[in-house]
Amino acid sequence: MTLILSNADVEQLLTMEDCIAVLEEAYTELAHERGVSRTRSDSITPTTAQDDALYSLKSMDGVIPKLGVGAVRINSDIITWPKVGNNVRRVKVPAAPNKRYTGLVLLFSSDTGEPLAIMPDGIMQHIRVGAANGLGVKYLARENCSTIGILGSGFQAETQLTAACAVRDIKSIKCFSPTKSNREAFCEKMTDILGIPVTPVDTTEDAIGDVDIIMCASNTVDPIFFEQWLRPGIHLSSIKRPEVEPSAILKCDRVFVHTHDGKPIHTLTKDLQLPEAQENKGWNIAAGIDFGALPTLPQLIAGMKEGRQSDSEITCFLNNLGLGYQFAAAGSVVYKRAMEKGMGHNLPTDWFTEDVHP
Amino acid sequence: MTLILSNADVEQLLTMEDCIAVLEEAYTELAHERGVSRTRSDSITPTTAQDDALYSLKSMDGVIPKLGVGAVRINSDIITWPKVGNNVRRVKVPAAPNKRYTGLVLLFSSDTGEPLAIMPDGIMQHIRVGAANGLGVKYLARENCSTIGILGSGFQAETQLTAACAVRDIKSIKCFSPTKSNREAFCEKMTDILGIPVTPVDTTEDAIGDVDIIMCASNTVDPIFFEQWLRPGIHLSSIKRPEVEPSAILKCDRVFVHTHDGKPIHTLTKDLQLPEAQENKGWNIAAGIDFGALPTLPQLIAGMKEGRQSDSEITCFLNNLGLGYQFAAAGSVVYKRAMEKGMGHNLPTDWFTEDVHP
Repeated sequence: MTLILSNADVEQLLTMEDCIAVLEEAYTELAHERGVSRTRSDSITPTTAQDDALYSLKSMDGVIPKLGVGAVRINSDIITWPKVGNNVRRVKVPAAPNKRYTGLVLLFSSDTGEPLAIMPDGIMQHIRVGAANGLGVKYLARENCSTIGILGSGFQAETQLTAACAVRDIKSIKCFSPTKSNREAFCEKMTDILGIPVTPVDTTEDAIGDVDIIMCASNTVDPIFFEQWLRPGIHLSSIKRPEVEPSAILKCDRVFVHTHDGKPIHTLTKDLQLPEAQENKGWNIAAGIDFGALPTLPQLIAGMKEGRQSDSEITCFLNNLGLGYQFAAAGSVVYKRAMEKGMGHNLPTDWFTEDVHP
Repeated sequence: MTLILSNADVEQLLTMEDCIAVLEEAYTELAHERGVSRTRSDSITPTTAQDDALYSLKSMDGVIPKLGVGAVRINSDIITWPKVGNNVRRVKVPAAPNKRYTGLVLLFSSDTGEPLAIMPDGIMQHIRVGAANGLGVKYLARENCSTIGILGSGFQAETQLTAACAVRDIKSIKCFSPTKSNREAFCEKMTDILGIPVTPVDTTEDAIGDVDIIMCASNTVDPIFFEQWLRPGIHLSSIKRPEVEPSAILKCDRVFVHTHDGKPIHTLTKDLQLPEAQENKGWNIAAGIDFGALPTLPQLIAGMKEGRQSDSEITCFLNNLGLGYQFAAAGSVVYKRAMEKGMGHNLPTDWFTEDVHP
C-alpha cells in the first residue's frame, strides 16, 4: 500500500530531535557522495489567479541509499511579492480550493522503486529548515551558549527556536519583528512551547545586542542583518541568502553554507522578471562572495571541514538553499513511524505503479 | 477533487490524433517562450534490488499557461543494461510490488496551483513519443509518402507507426528487429491495428531499402542506422540520440531535434559509471555535432525554421530527449476527457493540499 499522510500526521510523527538526527546521518552520506541531491528548479509563468501573481512549479529531488529512500518535493505555487515596511517579501497565495496551498512530498523506495507515501510538505518544510539551522548551532555555536536573539516571528521562527533549544541549553530568547502584535503573539506562544522566557523587543538592536546566538528567520528578499552588529563569540544563523548583508558575511571567521547549489534553476516565460531574481543578482555581484568556495554543513558534520576554534570566533551558517534530499531523510522517519502506528490513508500501491514499461 | 487515473483510463481517453493536436499547440507556445520546460534530471545511486542494477529517480517539469496546466513526470526506476546481440540496451526492472514499474504524472492547475490528477506515465509516455515523431513526419516528410520501414518491434514501435499513419496516407510497412518471433508478432498485431500490411523482414536493409520513411524505434544505446543507407527523398525518424550514426546525421539536408536540452542532468553517487553515459560521451565527441545549434521541432511547427524544400532532400527528426512539457500537454487532454466522462478515482483535493504555508 501507499500511504497518504496529512500535515497533522507529520506533526505528530516527526519530532525536531528525530529530524535533526536523521539529517545528521543523511548529511554525512551526502558529504561522502553516497547520497545524491538534485538542485531545485522553478518553472515560472503568468497565471490568471490574480494580477500581481505568478505561477511557479518548483521541484527538488534527493536519494539516500543508506535509508532506502528517494523523494521528490513539489510546490505548485501562486506567488506575490508585496512590500512590507522597507522590505519586499515573497508570499504564496492559497489559491487552491478551500483557500489552500499545494506542496507535496512523494517518497519512493530506492530498493524497489515503489511509491511509499505522499504527504504535504508544509510541516516538514518548517521542521527541516529548523533542523538544518539547528545542526549549524550544534556544530558551530559555543558550547555554553544560553541566549538567542531572533529576527522574525513567522512560521520559520518557531522551528528555528525549537531546533536551537534541542542542541543547546538555552535560558532566554528575545524577538524582534516589524509588526508589534505579531511578535507579541509569537513570544507568548513560544514561551509556552519552550518553557523559557521569550520576550518581544522594539528594535533589532534590542533583540541581538547581548545574546550568544543571532537567528534570522524572515521571508525578506532584502538584508535585515548588518555588519555593524557583529560581535566576537556570536553564532549567526540565517535561513535565506539575502538576510545577511554581504560585508557581514565576509567579516565572520567561519562561514558555512547549506549547499553548493548556488541558486535554483529558473525557467521563465519570455520577458518575465522576478523581484527576487533582481535582488539576488545585485546582491551577489556587489558582494563578490563565491558561495561555491565556502564549506558546507554536510562537510562540517562529516568532519571534512573545521568548525569553531575558539570562544571568540564569529561563526555563521547560511541556509542558502533547501534540498529535496532533506525531504527524503525526514520522509523516511515519517513513513517508518506512520507504518508502526498504522496512520494515514492506505491506497493500493497499484494505483501509483504500472505494468506498462514506461 | 483530485483524479487518480490508470493506464487503462489514459489509453481510453488519449487518442494519437488528440495527442498530436495538443502537442502541436503546446510546441507553438514553447517556441514563442509562452510555456516553459525544465530539463530532465536523473538522480542515480546503488540499489539492493539486484546486483547489476542501479536506482534512478528521474523527474521533468513543464508548464503551459495557455492550457492552464503544469506537470511533473517522475520515474522511480530500477535499471539494468543487458547486452542483446551486439547492442547494449537500457532495461527497467519491474521491482515494485506485483512486479510493476513506478512512473507517475502529476498534473497541476497553473491558475490555482491545485493538483488536478495523478496518473501513471506508461501509456502517455509511448503516445507522446509517437506524437512528437509523428509531428516530425507531418512537417518534414514528403506529402506523398506511402511506405515506412521501421527498426524495432517493441512498445515504442507501435506508437511510432500509429503516429506516422495519422499524418500521412501510408499503404504498407516493413519491420526488422533482431528477434524473429518478436517482429512477427508485432507485424501481425500492427496489421490488425492499422488495417494495412505490416510485414516482417530478415535484415535492416530489407526493411529500409525502398521506403519513403525510415523510423528507428529501439532501446539501444548503440547506433542501428548508418550513413550508407541514406537515399534522396527519405525522411529519417529516431526516438533516441544514439540510434543514428553521427556521420549519417551530418549528411542529411535538414535535421531537427526535439529540444536544445542537450542531455539529462545526471547526479550520481561517487564512482558510479553508467554504460549509456560512456556511450553517449564517445558518440558526441566523435561526431562533432553541436546539437544546440540544430533547429527544434517546436521552431519548425511555429514557422520559425524552414522544413523540407524539395522532394529530393533528406530530412531527419531526432527525438533527442523527452520533455515534462509533453506530459503537461497530453495530461490536460486526459484530465478534460476524464472529467467529462466521470472516470478515475476521485480523492479529496484537501488530501493533496494544505493550510500550512509551505
